[in-house]
Amino acid sequence: MKPLLSLILTRRLSSPLVAGTPLHSNNNYTSVVAPLRRLHRPAFAPSTPRLKFQIPQTNKKKPEKMSTDATTLKGQPLDRAALDAMLRRRLFYTPSFEIYGGVSGLYDYGPPGCALQANVIDLWRKHFILEEDMLEVDCTVLTPHDVLKTSGHVDKFADWMCKDPKNGEILRADHFVEDILEQRLKGDKEARGLKVEEKEETDKKKAAKKKKNKGGVEAVRLDDAVVKEYEEILAQIDNYNGEQLGELIKKHDLRNPATGLQPTPPVSFNLMFQTSIGPSSNLPGYLRPETAQGQFLNFAKLLEFNTGQMPFASASIGKSYRNEISPRAGLLRVREFLMAEIEHFVDPEGHKKHARFHEVADVELAFLDRHTQLSGSTVVKKQTIGQAVKEGLVDNETLGYFLARILLFLKKIGIDEKKIRFRQHMDNEMAHYACDCWDAELHTSAGWVECVGCADRSAYDLSVHAKKTGAPLVVRQRLEEPITIEEWDIAIDKKNFGPFYKKDGKTIENALLATTQEQRGKLVKQLEENGKVVIDVPGVNDGKVEVSKDLLAIKWVKRVENVREYTPNVIEPSFGIGRILYSLMEHNYWTRASEGGDEARGVLSFPPAVAPTKVLIVPLSSNKDFTPEVRKLSQKLRSAGVSSRIDDSSASIGKRYSRNDELGTPFGVTVDFQTLKDGTVTLRERDSTRQVRAEEDKIIAAIKALVEGTKTWQDVEGELPIFEGQQEVEVVVR
Amino acid sequence: MKPLLSLILTRRLSSPLVAGTPLHSNNNYTSVVAPLRRLHRPAFAPSTPRLKFQIPQTNKKKPEKMSTDATTLKGQPLDRAALDAMLRRRLFYTPSFEIYGGVSGLYDYGPPGCALQANVIDLWRKHFILEEDMLEVDCTVLTPHDVLKTSGHVDKFADWMCKDPKNGEILRADHFVEDILEQRLKGDKEARGLKVEEKEETDKKKAAKKKKNKGGVEAVRLDDAVVKEYEEILAQIDNYNGEQLGELIKKHDLRNPATGLQPTPPVSFNLMFQTSIGPSSNLPGYLRPETAQGQFLNFAKLLEFNTGQMPFASASIGKSYRNEISPRAGLLRVREFLMAEIEHFVDPEGHKKHARFHEVADVELAFLDRHTQLSGSTVVKKQTIGQAVKEGLVDNETLGYFLARILLFLKKIGIDEKKIRFRQHMDNEMAHYACDCWDAELHTSAGWVECVGCADRSAYDLSVHAKKTGAPLVVRQRLEEPITIEEWDIAIDKKNFGPFYKKDGKTIENALLATTQEQRGKLVKQLEENGKVVIDVPGVNDGKVEVSKDLLAIKWVKRVENVREYTPNVIEPSFGIGRILYSLMEHNYWTRASEGGDEARGVLSFPPAVAPTKVLIVPLSSNKDFTPEVRKLSQKLRSAGVSSRIDDSSASIGKRYSRNDELGTPFGVTVDFQTLKDGTVTLRERDSTRQVRAEEDKIIAAIKALVEGTKTWQDVEGELPIFEGQQEVEVVVR
Repeated sequence: MKPLLSLILTRRLSSPLVAGTPLHSNNNYTSVVAPLRRLHRPAFAPSTPRLKFQIPQTNKKKPEKMSTDATTLKGQPLDRAALDAMLRRRLFYTPSFEIYGGVSGLYDYGPPGCALQANVIDLWRKHFILEEDMLEVDCTVLTPHDVLKTSGHVDKFADWMCKDPKNGEILRADHFVEDILEQRLKGDKEARGLKVEEKEETDKKKAAKKKKNKGGVEAVRLDDAVVKEYEEILAQIDNYNGEQLGELIKKHDLRNPATGLQPTPPVSFNLMFQTSIGPSSNLPGYLRPETAQGQFLNFAKLLEFNTGQMPFASASIGKSYRNEISPRAGLLRVREFLMAEIEHFVDPEGHKKHARFHEVADVELAFLDRHTQLSGSTVVKKQTIGQAVKEGLVDNETLGYFLARILLFLKKIGIDEKKIRFRQHMDNEMAHYACDCWDAELHTSAGWVECVGCADRSAYDLSVHAKKTGAPLVVRQRLEEPITIEEWDIAIDKKNFGPFYKKDGKTIENALLATTQEQRGKLVKQLEENGKVVIDVPGVNDGKVEVSKDLLAIKWVKRVENVREYTPNVIEPSFGIGRILYSLMEHNYWTRASEGGDEARGVLSFPPAVAPTKVLIVPLSSNKDFTPEVRKLSQKLRSAGVSSRIDDSSASIGKRYSRNDELGTPFGVTVDFQTLKDGTVTLRERDSTRQVRAEEDKIIAAIKALVEGTKTWQDVEGELPIFEGQQEVEVVVR
Repeated sequence: MKPLLSLILTRRLSSPLVAGTPLHSNNNYTSVVAPLRRLHRPAFAPSTPRLKFQIPQTNKKKPEKMSTDATTLKGQPLDRAALDAMLRRRLFYTPSFEIYGGVSGLYDYGPPGCALQANVIDLWRKHFILEEDMLEVDCTVLTPHDVLKTSGHVDKFADWMCKDPKNGEILRADHFVEDILEQRLKGDKEARGLKVEEKEETDKKKAAKKKKNKGGVEAVRLDDAVVKEYEEILAQIDNYNGEQLGELIKKHDLRNPATGLQPTPPVSFNLMFQTSIGPSSNLPGYLRPETAQGQFLNFAKLLEFNTGQMPFASASIGKSYRNEISPRAGLLRVREFLMAEIEHFVDPEGHKKHARFHEVADVELAFLDRHTQLSGSTVVKKQTIGQAVKEGLVDNETLGYFLARILLFLKKIGIDEKKIRFRQHMDNEMAHYACDCWDAELHTSAGWVECVGCADRSAYDLSVHAKKTGAPLVVRQRLEEPITIEEWDIAIDKKNFGPFYKKDGKTIENALLATTQEQRGKLVKQLEENGKVVIDVPGVNDGKVEVSKDLLAIKWVKRVENVREYTPNVIEPSFGIGRILYSLMEHNYWTRASEGGDEARGVLSFPPAVAPTKVLIVPLSSNKDFTPEVRKLSQKLRSAGVSSRIDDSSASIGKRYSRNDELGTPFGVTVDFQTLKDGTVTLRERDSTRQVRAEEDKIIAAIKALVEGTKTWQDVEGELPIFEGQQEVEVVVR
């Protein structure tokens, strides 16, 4: 134990908070009035993106950053309903248990979604774990109650919910207040004859909503003062607790449109899925809401595995669970999701320098800092990370290093750089033990979506678990020069202490050893005056325990330390893989309409590295003569390490290529009658639909180079003869 | 709906059972008396391996197959305690939440375990999914109650448990009966002065057991008749239900050694973890106990994705959960585990031929068929899969194809072929809808462990889900020649039916449509006689519903079918990844003692393809001059796609290599002062500890070839100069 340091930590970390932040929807007005968000929501469990009217003049000044209008890869307006329909049709994802009516917030990935996810995870592992020699761990999802009680999740990981007294409908309180006020404001706009902009919704959803709202928005004009009040409430909607939300419901008489009644007062609803481990119900447990805790609990073993060397990082890829009250945003808000989290452990002394920072110092990021947000603007500042750390915009090199590495990763997998920004948490939004926190937000049709969080969790987690269990989650560093320490030391009469307190002995001992120097100073006085001390031991008796001077001694001691013991700080880059995948699909989507082709012909221009399948092999027809050639090609591609699929269905070549454009397959090889004569095949590039023709082995070599990124399509067109045969015409015209 | 076929299916599948089988511990006596197992246990949730005495004469005849004594890779007896200690020390795995006291049946994988798992999964994906164009899906773990009610898991997925009335200890009933009877038989053996063989146990466990048993086994001689009775009970222990186990406890006065009391009568304990989805408790759910159900529910979408073509397979890699009553066998029995499952959908007509069967026909397998087991023997028969299918030993080509592919996969990842056998389920052990079922069992220190199950689940799952939901989980195949069908047809008065039955309308309609032709024949009579029919509709009213002739007509119709509609059968290879990983570690473990070296020096001789790290880079000392060279090497290896780790800790080179032998790192590169002069480095091979020395680039090329399997170490020794420098001596001697 290390009283001096733990004193400092205990002071800084007195109140456990759950890390994370709500999804930051692109709500300009919110930014203008500087919302002070309070943190009761975790990363990747954000508020549902909201229906907002726009403020034209703000929008006009910075259209490229402020627009909620998502665009396709080619810059056309994105039709989210059309994209969603395509993604479901092509089985990228599908609602789970659909034949049983489905369960909201649960989705299955079909073959292309699965392959896309596997490829992104593979790149993530290479980009972070292998590149940085991180220690990957795979911890269980099942987590006993005590662990999450200590981390603060049992008490704080909650949303406010209320209930309709008539139909029993469950409502998330903040969403309910928001929805009703927004409906009223919208009605006011209509009454004033102003244009109302709405996010894309499918016809089905619109119809459902209309039905629920019993005829939709009523065009009722409000007083200007009321409008102002509503807008101010909406701007700080994340800032209300349950009681306050309840007061708002009463004060403004907010009624559920379905029944015309006010819902019940909000109650806290913990977002963790609860279960019971083992045959008797004496071990309550939860499904983890984040992978981080398992990494913290293994810290001492990981440090030893790393031969005691600091700094180092652990990493984990796995599922986490959050029991959302009413998930509504498709893949962006789900109850079961894949996370990839890094815990980088670093010495808090020495300004958190990073040995490889120079490698990324010139990487340019789009920053949206807290001061800009507080001033009501969302204009990003482009700057190199080197400059940002130098100026103090980003707190330290380690945090800066990871921000740059996150950007490089996102670009590598095909996220559109123009749709990435790094948003700093505002002071009231950030967990108070953190010194800086940034989210990588990706722009989608749901606005700016938090997809990666990068927080400095300080020593919070290691400290609380160490305090609770007595496990030394610390680093012991040999000092070059010994130092002398004078401090209060607690000694326990081991022989009699345990037998006296029986089963609570260890807990009480840990509580004593965890006392700070300041507390010990006071305990000494108690001991002198009363012959005993009273200390707080949560969970034992009524939380107070008496220890008499027979069992305890507190003395002022002087000792020489050769070893410095410290609790590392943690920098935590945390990736919501599902959200990244969805953004990736939006960013790479476009339709042939933008090139004068068919609106209905969608394309997903994934980079070859993440594309679910690299090559489609299409025989010209179902003629059996093509079969041996097709098999041989497939075999050769597999030997070259390139995944391919054969489509020998009876559909026309154009249709088959269309289908694979929607699946994001970058290359296509056609086997035709010419192939049987001279062994040549054609190679088609997805985005341009241009083709070359050459001998099979040359084509395979070209594909390998294209997939590995050593050649571009332009290179290949320069080397192999262009092909403009009949099939190509068919593909383009269909 | 398709009355004729569903009639046949309904008859065959009337009683839902849960697929799977207990772990087959190497209990020779069990085999002798032909146990008739009843199936209430799933694959990968087997009985705990038992403490058994051996029958010497049986053992003598077939020592290589019958011995429970596990061996190391080099054939020495395997010291399981030493191996386990090493695996934990090297963080292959570690008990979860250990600083909180741990939770039995939950383990975390540390960095080497994680990498081993990722590599095995990667090979699995290539070997099965990519090679066979399978459709991978990623379904949710959270599963609503209704799905698992239909599949039979809610009712049948259970074990029998009882409780000590004094100390409240929870006991798995069959294990309890087994343990006590075995203790008595062991006491009898001791009293008779016979040798008792025991499995390896750590000293700690032994001590714990001794304490629990209040002094251990009592040497009490039993009557010969009692011995015989006990042995017969043990031989069919899996065959008793809860009531029978309760009778055994009473009849033989079986008492818990810890309290001296008989436990309470056994009650059924469902093994699924329960939770509640959403904010109100109206949607009970479970953590899935297998990945299969998600695949079945998506069948129609997958078939469409596959452009309607049959046969095809789906596959899924993910976690499953089973709430074991008292997990005791380390990694072999856990509550949260990774599975990889394939569902191969095939037309039940046409003898389940497989197009690629010829590719594996010559693969030789060790078969332990049901007849051999029933005759009391465990002698395996080696035969090609081609011959086995031809003789009818294995039911069909598709099943045979997968058995061979499973063997090839296990060999590829480094499982010892001598320790693989394929055991056929006995008639009473097999789910009654299955026509054949084989387990790939791997021999370990816990006996023969079921690691892969390969069952023909027939059309059971698709049929029950289709019946429950009304979803058409069928294949529609265009017929070459139309066929004429005469049968009873049910027509419902749609206009009035729904309004009359309200919310139950759909359920009742589905129940009517699901009636068989035989049932309809009877319903016609009811309708004529009573003007109404009474049908079974589980969940509506008291399970019986009346339908009057106003709402229903049943007529004998004749129609011409152009399309054949059928429910596919399913062949299901199902892999328990954790068990395979543990077996892999045992099979590749040995100590240098077998070569006259140090007993404490363990080695894990993983094939390079699965080894957690491929190359260790060791600078001779912590001299800073080595750093640039070490970094360069690491970078070059990464570019070559080879994972490496640097160990520049202050330990001696010998110690560092020793550590990496334990981690299973196949190659080591040393950077020394010579390197700084001429750019040469040494390359060490883990198993032989032999070294070569050459220029860096040549060494990297050699490593790449070794890792990819294009060259052997012998090839490399033939091409590059052998090195027998000082370090090598240090490594061997230490």
